Amino acid sequence: MGIITLTTDLGYKDFYQAALKGSIISLYPNAQLIDISHNIAPFNIQQAAFVLKNAYRFFPDETVHLIGIESVFSENVRYVAIRHENHYFVGADSGIFSLIFECKPDEIVELNIVQDLKFLHFPLTDIFAKAASHLAQGGKLGEIGDPIDDIVLKNVLQPTITDNTIRGSVIYIDSFENIITNISKELFNKVQKGRNFELAFRRNETIKNLSWHYNEVENGEKLCLFGISNHLEIALNRGKAAGLLGMGLNDTILVTFFNKRD
Amino acid sequence: MGIITLTTDLGYKDFYQAALKGSIISLYPNAQLIDISHNIAPFNIQQAAFVLKNAYRFFPDETVHLIGIESVFSENVRYVAIRHENHYFVGADSGIFSLIFECKPDEIVELNIVQDLKFLHFPLTDIFAKAASHLAQGGKLGEIGDPIDDIVLKNVLQPTITDNTIRGSVIYIDSFENIITNISKELFNKVQKGRNFELAFRRNETIKNLSWHYNEVENGEKLCLFGISNHLEIALNRGKAAGLLGMGLNDTILVTFFNKRD
Amino acid sequence: MGIITLTTDLGYKDFYQAALKGSIISLYPNAQLIDISHNIAPFNIQQAAFVLKNAYRFFPDETVHLIGIESVFSENVRYVAIRHENHYFVGADSGIFSLIFECKPDEIVELNIVQDLKFLHFPLTDIFAKAASHLAQGGKLGEIGDPIDDIVLKNVLQPTITDNTIRGSVIYIDSFENIITNISKELFNKVQKGRNFELAFRRNETIKNLSWHYNEVENGEKLCLFGISNHLEIALNRGKAAGLLGMGLNDTILVTFFNKRD
Repeated sequence: MGIITLTTDLGYKDFYQAALKGSIISLYPNAQLIDISHNIAPFNIQQAAFVLKNAYRFFPDETVHLIGIESVFSENVRYVAIRHENHYFVGADSGIFSLIFECKPDEIVELNIVQDLKFLHFPLTDIFAKAASHLAQGGKLGEIGDPIDDIVLKNVLQPTITDNTIRGSVIYIDSFENIITNISKELFNKVQKGRNFELAFRRNETIKNLSWHYNEVENGEKLCLFGISNHLEIALNRGKAAGLLGMGLNDTILVTFFNKRD
Repeated sequence: MGIITLTTDLGYKDFYQAALKGSIISLYPNAQLIDISHNIAPFNIQQAAFVLKNAYRFFPDETVHLIGIESVFSENVRYVAIRHENHYFVGADSGIFSLIFECKPDEIVELNIVQDLKFLHFPLTDIFAKAASHLAQGGKLGEIGDPIDDIVLKNVLQPTITDNTIRGSVIYIDSFENIITNISKELFNKVQKGRNFELAFRRNETIKNLSWHYNEVENGEKLCLFGISNHLEIALNRGKAAGLLGMGLNDTILVTFFNKRD
Repeated sequence: MGIITLTTDLGYKDFYQAALKGSIISLYPNAQLIDISHNIAPFNIQQAAFVLKNAYRFFPDETVHLIGIESVFSENVRYVAIRHENHYFVGADSGIFSLIFECKPDEIVELNIVQDLKFLHFPLTDIFAKAASHLAQGGKLGEIGDPIDDIVLKNVLQPTITDNTIRGSVIYIDSFENIITNISKELFNKVQKGRNFELAFRRNETIKNLSWHYNEVENGEKLCLFGISNHLEIALNRGKAAGLLGMGLNDTILVTFFNKRD
């Protein structure tokens, strides 16, 4: 049974995600469908990318990840299928793929299975379902599209770095209201070089220790850690950090590292 | 694997939809369960009908669609199973089926698999799960019910038509806040006869062009189109139309068609 | 296909529940995953226990129920797998199991499949997924853990009883806003002994009849019944009882029974 995961902004109230599932099941009755999320905020490709980037590695090789966001036809849109790290991805080339992958993906095709795209009302059922079903059954990329060289690149705010500081920003608030930043564990370690640090945010808030688990501080106390996303995260033990600390998307944080003599 | 879809107002928070799924799986371990939605507003059979009417055709023939809304026992309730256009439907005959089908369904039975309905606490697990499992495994309608002639009819507001106008109303607001009316593409085309038109709503809002895609106007601009439901829909490109245009369920809209000389 | 149900507070927005599903599917590709709910309120083990306690019996024997709440590592936490009434349960021994089972479960092991628990970031993917996959494929408890004698007990408010009264409290509000109390049908019957009763709550609200179905009173009228959870429940026919009657979690209710001569 081939696995197809779904990441969309279609919600759980309407018939849209069901139409997508019905289309896939009609083409490939044994597909194993897994919802990553249909609760992506409408049109928010950053959020969709963050969610899928962190989820896809948990699935087996050869899993097909269908992305249903920003897929309305326009003159410039390309619908693509991608193979990367032995996973497949299908979606509109809106720039989202450059947010999911750290580097250029292994193989990219522009889908050619529908002749006249501009009369498609709902690309998810009309073209993405076909491409995903094909790949989940072991079909090849070359059979559904023409090779292209690269994906659309989308710029996002990157942390700024000096010898002693990393200035980052908030990229995601999860449903526990943990505050997730764009500072990866790899980057943090590279700049830290074993030194002590102070994480500062808002006017006067500081954290000086890295926790491993949320419950290493008292209930309601703040902490920072590298969570399951491997990004630096500010949280309150059993508390809603974003609301209580007044932090939101794109807010900045500053990490300062101290030389031993400081 | 037989497919059983679920459309209910049970929500995702409680144990009710899980109890329904467990009941089906206990009877038919290989059932492939697909949630159409459990987020139908409580007791809202119009909403459930709209969602299922638009979703079911995307599924393969022989799919069983279980409807879990308005199913509490009363003296007058009938629990039915229906075959229509090679799909099966199971639910309470509350009038919902007359909202799903355009015409009298192909075959209807009143379920007779439970002797004393009035002690059923939860018809979904006690009778609907049994009927759906039976049908999904290839069982016949005649084995679980007695043939009846027709379903309960429920009246809903239909558009009113003159030679030059269609007066319709809002029947659904989706999670993007697109505004969906009761004017079907078929009806629109029949009255339009190729003429120009003006769609008017609220005090002064008008739209004079039919779009094919949401993004044919600027971001935030209003448009109308026939969406995936094939009903006339008012939307804002990437905007929340219902909230921003102040439109809600049952609000009226007027389409006026112009003769060439006008 | 082994069945694994999931009951967590991970929500449907983030990648966490998808990571859990991907981990299980990677270990056991044929697992049949059923969401009981991911909408448990964060850290609310009473709510999780109520939901799972009422759901699990609807599933077939040998089903594995994975509980993903309050599972962060701490010095005192034990991760356990339990066999009870031919169902399996996997989770953190936070006290939740004492709320799910009426008595000591049939068999309990402390999981020993991960050596150094304290570096686990996400026990759901790292240890619970492994244990659940093992059990769902027919593996034995003894192969993944060491037998232990008992589970952590968590006290919850029990009804107080006299010859003529039961004083109970609200333990759950469902998505229809039905008000569910901690008075079981068994307890009610034992104290009632066939007598008439009056259920009193808030200042002046009383109910004197037990209904079988929600619709035995007029729309909007209050009633009480033993719902599908077999607990005494206060509801409004087609109305939102909790909000309209002003009742919330932990509010008390009093049932008084009358001797024939009263």
